[in-house]
Amino acid sequence: FVSLLSSAIIVYRLPWTWKCSKLLMKFIHAGLNTIAMILAIVSMVAVFEYHNARNIPNMYSLHSWIGLTAVVFYSLQLFLGFAVFLLPFAPVPLRAALMPTHVYSGLAIFATVIATALTGITEKLIFSLKNPAYSTSPPEATFVNCLGLLLVIFGALILWMASRAHWKRPPEENAKVLRPIGGTPDGTEAESAMTDGSNADKSDLRVSSEAARKQNLKLDEAGQRSTM
Amino acid sequence: FVSLLSSAIIVYRLPWTWKCSKLLMKFIHAGLNTIAMILAIVSMVAVFEYHNARNIPNMYSLHSWIGLTAVVFYSLQLFLGFAVFLLPFAPVPLRAALMPTHVYSGLAIFATVIATALTGITEKLIFSLKNPAYSTSPPEATFVNCLGLLLVIFGALILWMASRAHWKRPPEENAKVLRPIGGTPDGTEAESAMTDGSNADKSDLRVSSEAARKQNLKLDEAGQRSTM
Repeated sequence: FVSLLSSAIIVYRLPWTWKCSKLLMKFIHAGLNTIAMILAIVSMVAVFEYHNARNIPNMYSLHSWIGLTAVVFYSLQLFLGFAVFLLPFAPVPLRAALMPTHVYSGLAIFATVIATALTGITEKLIFSLKNPAYSTSPPEATFVNCLGLLLVIFGALILWMASRAHWKRPPEENAKVLRPIGGTPDGTEAESAMTDGSNADKSDLRVSSEAARKQNLKLDEAGQRSTM
Repeated sequence: FVSLLSSAIIVYRLPWTWKCSKLLMKFIHAGLNTIAMILAIVSMVAVFEYHNARNIPNMYSLHSWIGLTAVVFYSLQLFLGFAVFLLPFAPVPLRAALMPTHVYSGLAIFATVIATALTGITEKLIFSLKNPAYSTSPPEATFVNCLGLLLVIFGALILWMASRAHWKRPPEENAKVLRPIGGTPDGTEAESAMTDGSNADKSDLRVSSEAARKQNLKLDEAGQRSTM
């Protein structure tokens, strides 16, 4: 689940995807998140059924509270993301205005999911390791602690990749958009994506990259014409 | 500890501090972090002494591992921050180059500290609530779960404030620097601060704000002259 989420986050940051069309990248992003959501629902059903079968109370722990919060916000994020960024109805200014929030919530949900995993691991280790006890540091405890620490490092790496400006898809590539039939011109929100750099004073920058985009669009159209 | 850390993070984002000199803001930031570091050391000593007095093994849990990682990186962050950004020896390009990493590590350490707190709360609830057990959701459990959830929401809010471009100190104010004796001209690193917006394509922006800075410096000097 965490790996799916992180793949969905960094798909815009992987150099090989820069060669994909923007629409394909959006589909990969949405697809990975949808699979992750399905897995989250399946695992939650499994937890509730396991608890009910063993007469363990549901939703009593901090782990479950944080986890449910994450899943609720994740569903909201998925629904809004689908409605605003994938369906072709939302106007470009709305997309541009919502993109920083979409990016922030995505990363915040990712961090919350990691926190959920860490509290879950802590719980599980305490409940499962009785003989020898967790406090005597048996090999399983050390192994799972290492996994937990790796999860923290992994999360930090993903957030690093997602927040670096130079890991961002080069703006010139934004032009290579395969427009869906009836699709809106969706180039603008990419500028305000991931890093959400200084929106207020970025207007001149946006103008110049807009110019580059147009120039590339021409080149691209020319390229398509030459290959078709 | 978390509140000190978060105060240190958002001090640059509070409108009333925009009226302070940049050096004073840096001192507030460094001071709050130093107090937080002292508290972290005191609490770690207390934990080890408590464990030793009660014959509880040290450093066996995931909570302790994540916590120690956070403290180690926090000391490193404090030492490097002091050496590079507070002492007047580091050249401006080095400050500018290290600032995005300093900001990222600060926020990552903050998130790790929250994760440590959450695993610690989980542990403590399981160990302390025996009769009635944690799983029967006694009022204490619900209360502390709420605190944990509020911690997640609080952390998310702080990270939101720290990553928003329009919460950033307006660049014109950067000019109001009270130079320490022998201090380096430290206006440049503010541009690459907090949001770490597109470094690569921001050069023209930096030039314009540099110009604004110089203009303000003149005004400021004039103002100082007129009042002195």
